[in-house]
Amino acid sequence: FRSGKPEAIFAQNKTPEQLVKIVEAFLECKDSVLITRLNYEQIKALRECFDDVYINDIGKIAVIGKKAKDLREGKVEGLGKTAVFTAGTSDKPVAEEACVTAMFLGLEVLKFYDVGIACIYRLVEPLKRVKEEDVDSIIAIAGMEGALPSVLAGLVDVPIIAVPTSVGYGVNLGGITTLFSMLLSCPAGVAVVNIDNGFGAGVFAYLISRIRRRSSRS
Amino acid sequence: FRSGKPEAIFAQNKTPEQLVKIVEAFLECKDSVLITRLNYEQIKALRECFDDVYINDIGKIAVIGKKAKDLREGKVEGLGKTAVFTAGTSDKPVAEEACVTAMFLGLEVLKFYDVGIACIYRLVEPLKRVKEEDVDSIIAIAGMEGALPSVLAGLVDVPIIAVPTSVGYGVNLGGITTLFSMLLSCPAGVAVVNIDNGFGAGVFAYLISRIRRRSSRS
Amino acid sequence: FRSGKPEAIFAQNKTPEQLVKIVEAFLECKDSVLITRLNYEQIKALRECFDDVYINDIGKIAVIGKKAKDLREGKVEGLGKTAVFTAGTSDKPVAEEACVTAMFLGLEVLKFYDVGIACIYRLVEPLKRVKEEDVDSIIAIAGMEGALPSVLAGLVDVPIIAVPTSVGYGVNLGGITTLFSMLLSCPAGVAVVNIDNGFGAGVFAYLISRIRRRSSRS
Amino acid sequence: FRSGKPEAIFAQNKTPEQLVKIVEAFLECKDSVLITRLNYEQIKALRECFDDVYINDIGKIAVIGKKAKDLREGKVEGLGKTAVFTAGTSDKPVAEEACVTAMFLGLEVLKFYDVGIACIYRLVEPLKRVKEEDVDSIIAIAGMEGALPSVLAGLVDVPIIAVPTSVGYGVNLGGITTLFSMLLSCPAGVAVVNIDNGFGAGVFAYLISRIRRRSSRS
Amino acid sequence: FRSGKPEAIFAQNKTPEQLVKIVEAFLECKDSVLITRLNYEQIKALRECFDDVYINDIGKIAVIGKKAKDLREGKVEGLGKTAVFTAGTSDKPVAEEACVTAMFLGLEVLKFYDVGIACIYRLVEPLKRVKEEDVDSIIAIAGMEGALPSVLAGLVDVPIIAVPTSVGYGVNLGGITTLFSMLLSCPAGVAVVNIDNGFGAGVFAYLISRIRRRSSRS
Amino acid sequence: FRSGKPEAIFAQNKTPEQLVKIVEAFLECKDSVLITRLNYEQIKALRECFDDVYINDIGKIAVIGKKAKDLREGKVEGLGKTAVFTAGTSDKPVAEEACVTAMFLGLEVLKFYDVGIACIYRLVEPLKRVKEEDVDSIIAIAGMEGALPSVLAGLVDVPIIAVPTSVGYGVNLGGITTLFSMLLSCPAGVAVVNIDNGFGAGVFAYLISRIRRRSSRS
Amino acid sequence: FRSGKPEAIFAQNKTPEQLVKIVEAFLECKDSVLITRLNYEQIKALRECFDDVYINDIGKIAVIGKKAKDLREGKVEGLGKTAVFTAGTSDKPVAEEACVTAMFLGLEVLKFYDVGIACIYRLVEPLKRVKEEDVDSIIAIAGMEGALPSVLAGLVDVPIIAVPTSVGYGVNLGGITTLFSMLLSCPAGVAVVNIDNGFGAGVFAYLISRIRRRSSRS
Amino acid sequence: FRSGKPEAIFAQNKTPEQLVKIVEAFLECKDSVLITRLNYEQIKALRECFDDVYINDIGKIAVIGKKAKDLREGKVEGLGKTAVFTAGTSDKPVAEEACVTAMFLGLEVLKFYDVGIACIYRLVEPLKRVKEEDVDSIIAIAGMEGALPSVLAGLVDVPIIAVPTSVGYGVNLGGITTLFSMLLSCPAGVAVVNIDNGFGAGVFAYLISRIRRRSSRS
Ligand SMILES: Nc1ncnc2c1ncn2[C@@H]1O[C@H](COP(=O)(O)O)[C@@H](O)[C@H]1O
Ligand SMILES: Nc1ncnc2c1ncn2[C@@H]1O[C@H](COP(=O)(O)O)[C@@H](O)[C@H]1O
Ligand SMILES: Nc1ncnc2c1ncn2[C@@H]1O[C@H](COP(=O)(O)O)[C@@H](O)[C@H]1O
Ligand SMILES: Nc1ncnc2c1ncn2[C@@H]1O[C@H](COP(=O)(O)O)[C@@H](O)[C@H]1O
Ligand SMILES: [Mg+2]
Ligand SMILES: [Mg+2]
Ligand SMILES: [Mg+2]
Ligand SMILES: [Mg+2]
Ligand SMILES: [Mg+2]
Ligand SMILES: [Mg+2]
Ligand SMILES: [Mg+2]
Ligand SMILES: [Mg+2]
Repeated sequence: FRSGKPEAIFAQNKTPEQLVKIVEAFLECKDSVLITRLNYEQIKALRECFDDVYINDIGKIAVIGKKAKDLREGKVEGLGKTAVFTAGTSDKPVAEEACVTAMFLGLEVLKFYDVGIACIYRLVEPLKRVKEEDVDSIIAIAGMEGALPSVLAGLVDVPIIAVPTSVGYGVNLGGITTLFSMLLSCPAGVAVVNIDNGFGAGVFAYLISRIRRRSSRS
Repeated sequence: FRSGKPEAIFAQNKTPEQLVKIVEAFLECKDSVLITRLNYEQIKALRECFDDVYINDIGKIAVIGKKAKDLREGKVEGLGKTAVFTAGTSDKPVAEEACVTAMFLGLEVLKFYDVGIACIYRLVEPLKRVKEEDVDSIIAIAGMEGALPSVLAGLVDVPIIAVPTSVGYGVNLGGITTLFSMLLSCPAGVAVVNIDNGFGAGVFAYLISRIRRRSSRS
Repeated sequence: FRSGKPEAIFAQNKTPEQLVKIVEAFLECKDSVLITRLNYEQIKALRECFDDVYINDIGKIAVIGKKAKDLREGKVEGLGKTAVFTAGTSDKPVAEEACVTAMFLGLEVLKFYDVGIACIYRLVEPLKRVKEEDVDSIIAIAGMEGALPSVLAGLVDVPIIAVPTSVGYGVNLGGITTLFSMLLSCPAGVAVVNIDNGFGAGVFAYLISRIRRRSSRS
Repeated sequence: FRSGKPEAIFAQNKTPEQLVKIVEAFLECKDSVLITRLNYEQIKALRECFDDVYINDIGKIAVIGKKAKDLREGKVEGLGKTAVFTAGTSDKPVAEEACVTAMFLGLEVLKFYDVGIACIYRLVEPLKRVKEEDVDSIIAIAGMEGALPSVLAGLVDVPIIAVPTSVGYGVNLGGITTLFSMLLSCPAGVAVVNIDNGFGAGVFAYLISRIRRRSSRS
Repeated sequence: FRSGKPEAIFAQNKTPEQLVKIVEAFLECKDSVLITRLNYEQIKALRECFDDVYINDIGKIAVIGKKAKDLREGKVEGLGKTAVFTAGTSDKPVAEEACVTAMFLGLEVLKFYDVGIACIYRLVEPLKRVKEEDVDSIIAIAGMEGALPSVLAGLVDVPIIAVPTSVGYGVNLGGITTLFSMLLSCPAGVAVVNIDNGFGAGVFAYLISRIRRRSSRS
Repeated sequence: FRSGKPEAIFAQNKTPEQLVKIVEAFLECKDSVLITRLNYEQIKALRECFDDVYINDIGKIAVIGKKAKDLREGKVEGLGKTAVFTAGTSDKPVAEEACVTAMFLGLEVLKFYDVGIACIYRLVEPLKRVKEEDVDSIIAIAGMEGALPSVLAGLVDVPIIAVPTSVGYGVNLGGITTLFSMLLSCPAGVAVVNIDNGFGAGVFAYLISRIRRRSSRS
Repeated sequence: FRSGKPEAIFAQNKTPEQLVKIVEAFLECKDSVLITRLNYEQIKALRECFDDVYINDIGKIAVIGKKAKDLREGKVEGLGKTAVFTAGTSDKPVAEEACVTAMFLGLEVLKFYDVGIACIYRLVEPLKRVKEEDVDSIIAIAGMEGALPSVLAGLVDVPIIAVPTSVGYGVNLGGITTLFSMLLSCPAGVAVVNIDNGFGAGVFAYLISRIRRRSSRS
Repeated sequence: FRSGKPEAIFAQNKTPEQLVKIVEAFLECKDSVLITRLNYEQIKALRECFDDVYINDIGKIAVIGKKAKDLREGKVEGLGKTAVFTAGTSDKPVAEEACVTAMFLGLEVLKFYDVGIACIYRLVEPLKRVKEEDVDSIIAIAGMEGALPSVLAGLVDVPIIAVPTSVGYGVNLGGITTLFSMLLSCPAGVAVVNIDNGFGAGVFAYLISRIRRRSSRS
């Protein structure tokens, strides 16, 4: 057995030098590599050491190698389609991590940011689009309004991947309150990844699209 | 100074005999008394020892004395009006505690049970009623769908008293997840009482109605 | 909008009488209904009051109505395929809840129980079957060995729905340790539902299969 | 339906540039806007980019637009009245957030700071004032002495909005100990908002006053 | 070195037979023994097997041997004096454990039960007594109103031993909320023992009185 | 009633300017004042603005006014005696806070630092001293070895005031592990104050000595 | 690779019938089997269904098959030696689980129960024995006195396996306080297993002895 | 009694000056000393003040004195052998702390880094080496993949010392999730030390090797 999942580099806790070395090692056997949870110094080092670089500063995520150009030009393979919702504007960094990951893996991405349930009518337009576009999955990202995936699950019937974020204060407990509230809510059809793990959500969306695509080939 | 708040008896952890004695002592200086968090043996003892008894078995709450008759007949003084919402049917015991408390204190109560956000269109009718009836406050009770008060707060403009319940399993943490998620949600206009504390919510609704009524007298 | 998800009844915290009434109400507008988290008295009441009954005692789950017969006879619609893994024998009740839910929704289910990572070679045979059968998803259920989904994710490339169970003692914290350890592990391709939530996993597996089936129609 | 609640901007996690853009967008359709949880750079940016600015440095809160002048001159519409109590001097930042919010919404505010229960006689004078002024509600803010709202609730009969603060050390758990102790205390008549959420308390006080005022019109 | 502290038997988790044997062993070298945290069966066994028995059913505490008679007759050696306060009636079991322990060790005990801060004027009379009697220490016991010791500490100047109890529901966390809130409150002069540990408070009060008595001898 | 306890200033969360103002206000009605939890800037400001200053840099604690000179010269009134033990050298800052507080209040202080239970024989000499000097109480301070007070309580019979510190890593949870382990340990005769609260321990030791002294007068 | 570790049956959560079946399956390929965490009904079933049975009621642990006789007669293979210490008498059930496991695996076991650090001189005799007998490891079991392994580690130089137990009340948190305090204590030479996991400690002690024995063979 | 364990200096929370003084004191009675948890300034101070210095910057650990030279040259006494595994590259600092400690104590160390269970086949080669080299113990270090020790325990039969690290984000809780998941996993043969405590693991490995060596002498 061998899993077909993309290997990515987790930059957190690595010095810029260590990171550059690991990227170089990767590029010897792969044409492109994805790097997550970058800090400013690491980003600077990547910009200096490599030519084919795509960096998303908000998402703290980078692609190096052949696919960097496609990402810079917004091209995707079109192996499937996912929609990324965020409840607030502060959830954007996690959303961008999810988007870049999904695009790196070949998915087309629809973005609907700042459509939390505080003003529930803001969801009308995005949900219409989601239906028209026949997306394979929804990624629902929220820090202070954990109910977003649960409200969506009451209105659509595609699998929903929920991502709690650590945005908030007081009782947010670094995202655990929202994580638990996402796991707890009634309507089935929601599964959850780690707090702030946009990367994991992007990969999961890709796996769902992949299953769909594979079946249409058979 | 002296607070005008109703004293109630907290039955939990008291033997039936202790409870009966405390009720008797109360009835020597007050015409009616409210008793919360009763168990079956305590309810039996109250039924045996007193004549003027109103007992709500689901809410585990009782009224003894003059006001018991009014409650049995559904009469209320009409000092104000509150609406009690629950997300699920399992939240009913806490809701009944809130309703009986509010009615004991003279409020008219509108009940909308099992209108959680999983099927958001179920809220349409209740919200219309809430507007027509010009309620002074809303009590929003939920165990597994902590987002109910927050969704309501996005749609109405009366003060919302949220009551988390301990209903649920897994990550519900005896109600703390829902408590925190209620405190965290964005739209202001929500304040929270202790988990399962229907009594406290009923008293708070009464205090809001009382302020309103007092002002109309002045 | 209207979500196509199956409504199920959550029996916990309901009296047998309340439950029977709710089931009757359901059967007036639907031909079959799924009921989860049953206790012994509720199961007895269902057996007495209804004819078309399928009950899984280990999973504490029932189907009433037209589909009960199919389940008793092991027939499924074949809308898709999922594989259910458990780490230990004690995780079986949650696994059965997942299986009955998935079958109620039309999925074919492969079961691989007690194949935890303590004896990693026990996974070889099941993984071969998973590949041959071309399942749409894997449901990985574990209480004391939270690493099961993560090890699986390193070996296959279908979406993995992880279900932590409350089995264990000491630091298991009612399942939270395993939940967190599932969310934390590195290899992407895993998403998680609430502790002991076999039902939610079954529905999620169904939604993935449904997307795949829908696409093959288009 | 449309909620009449004021929209405010949550500055935390936004760059000064993002913030300025969002404020500008707001001012295109509203005459004034409230901004909470500002940091020093954001405050500097607001001062540079806008003319009509009121900034409260201690409360890290600002008003931009038409109402800024009123706030600078201490004018309020007089739609109601609330009293803000703090237990210690360190709770002042949260208190100022509550005051500015309430004043922005038209309330008159009485301030009683550093009157915690360590020296209970310090409460005598403030409580006399509260009675004479016939306030609609009390906002009780405390970090290390969570009993303040509960002691107040034993002495007055207006609704009390409790705000736990994150002030303290050791077992304060970033405010959660005080939050829980506020929720737990016996005397009813207290409802709680999130830790450090002076803004939410201000809005809730406004909603109570609004109900009272509305009734006097009818 | 050898500590002069009384050894007591912790009955919890012991079978009645084990307990009786341990008591017998004790009585071979001591004339009296204190036993805490008894359950009903253990109490029955003690009553059957020993003659010199004093049992306090509410406090689940017993004395066997020579001192049992004194306790039955309410006699104490008078080595010092402590005052035991409880906030609610439900805190009584813990208070009785403290009282019996203190009396077993020779202290005179003043009891003031159900004088929580919800009705702060109820404290006036007890505090007058405390001053007149010149007690060596105060034991302040509370479950839902953790502020009691802290309010007392603002009014008297003897050492205050605080005992949190597990009474309450919702966010009480088995007494931890009250424990933390007691540790957090500002006015110094309070030290805390384990939740429900009336025994430990009684011993600590005894040690304070002992120091005082010793000094008067020197 | 009026408590005879010393008021102290809690410097944390105050700007240097605020602090200086509060100290000046204090010195108008008292001849000396104690200030705790200082940071470097506050210490600098105190040095610049006042003449009679005693500052303990390790304990982050200061005395301003008449008593400053006594403290600089190591003079104490001799109202009683306490012994301060620490388990490790890292617990020293908390110990110094306790010592200065106790000395400010007139106590003589014996210091035994770095005598944790890892090398239990290091306790022999200090315990001999403690007996010879007839101390009124012991303050036992520990971060990583919560057993220190409990071992001491097995060897001496004066009241022991335990102070958990936040020193440590991993599972120390900012001191909560040590706090709980101190509260849990078997031998009675230990009471606990908040994590890192040397100040509270010093005041409590003072109150014990005061009771003893008072009695000798009577 | 294949690990030489003994497989044991974890009886918790299994019905007596399930358990009997699993034991029968085991006995088809092994001559003896160890069963842990038994309840009364399971023990009864084992006694009824099997002949070669050794049951330790306190430790809730059984051996079925060939080795049962040896255990009943107290015979052990003598592959090594471990010493089992408990702090209190209530820790005995966990200690017995450890002893039976170790003996099942061939170790000789020395037992020293109720030698907690409250009376530190009680450790003198056992430690002398430990030295004379040249044990390979120590298993130190404690619920309320987490310092036991740490004190031992300061006095001996064999590896110490610490087992926290769930005995206690209040802040014991089901054993987590003691677990953390064991992990935190300074002197190295201690490693920890799960709360109440006497079985795991027994196996670990066996592995240490096995290494020692293996080396002597080489 | 006197434990033969090496004393080491815990540098955290000490100023460079304090540290240098403590090291000098040590070197007066010992020829070498180990120092853990160093920061950059402390490392600089050590380099300046001492000649015989070995510093491992990644592990933040140093040896001063006679053994420093051996460590710089990679010489070890060969008193035993341990193998150090890490799941990820980010766990390296803790691993280096363990390695230097073990080598300081005379052990030979085999290193296998970044062999987590995400790619289970990466374990094949290291396990072959472990068998060939006949190591006395394994130290298994992991932050995000807590299952590593548990998978190893299923494949080898030497004692496994597990070290959870604080590496990770979201639900990692500073290492507690991984700690708990290590304690929970089924296959016996694993014992755990504090989070990030490479030092403790190194000492424990040494004690196991020591027992083995001692026995071969007898
Ligand atoms: N943002 C992320 N969150 C969780 N895991 C990640 C993330 N980025 C990369 N990974 C995983 O981390 C592992 C790589 O760790 P490392 O070898 O330390 O770079 C791979 O299994 C990746 O799939
Ligand atoms: N369900 C309840 N939740 C919280 N507090 C309550 C409840 N019922 C009564 N109380 C309060 O408990 C106190 C009475 O306690 P007790 O004297 O023990 O009966 C009064 O302050 C009541 O207002
Ligand atoms: N280190 C400390 N820990 C806890 N409380 C303190 C401390 N130092 C001073 N206090 C108390 O804090 C209160 C003063 O707070 P403030 O008015 O904000 O300066 C007084 O009640 C002091 O007794
Ligand atoms: N008391 C115990 N604590 C932890 N694990 C155990 C215990 N007893 C048996 N086990 C392990 O549990 C697994 C067997 O689980 P099962 O197949 O459900 O019986 C084996 O890996 C045993 O080694
Ligand atoms: Mg928004
Ligand atoms: Mg419902
Ligand atoms: Mg198994
Ligand atoms: Mg103050
Ligand atoms: Mg009361
Ligand atoms: Mg030391
Ligand atoms: Mg004992
Ligand atoms: Mg890696």
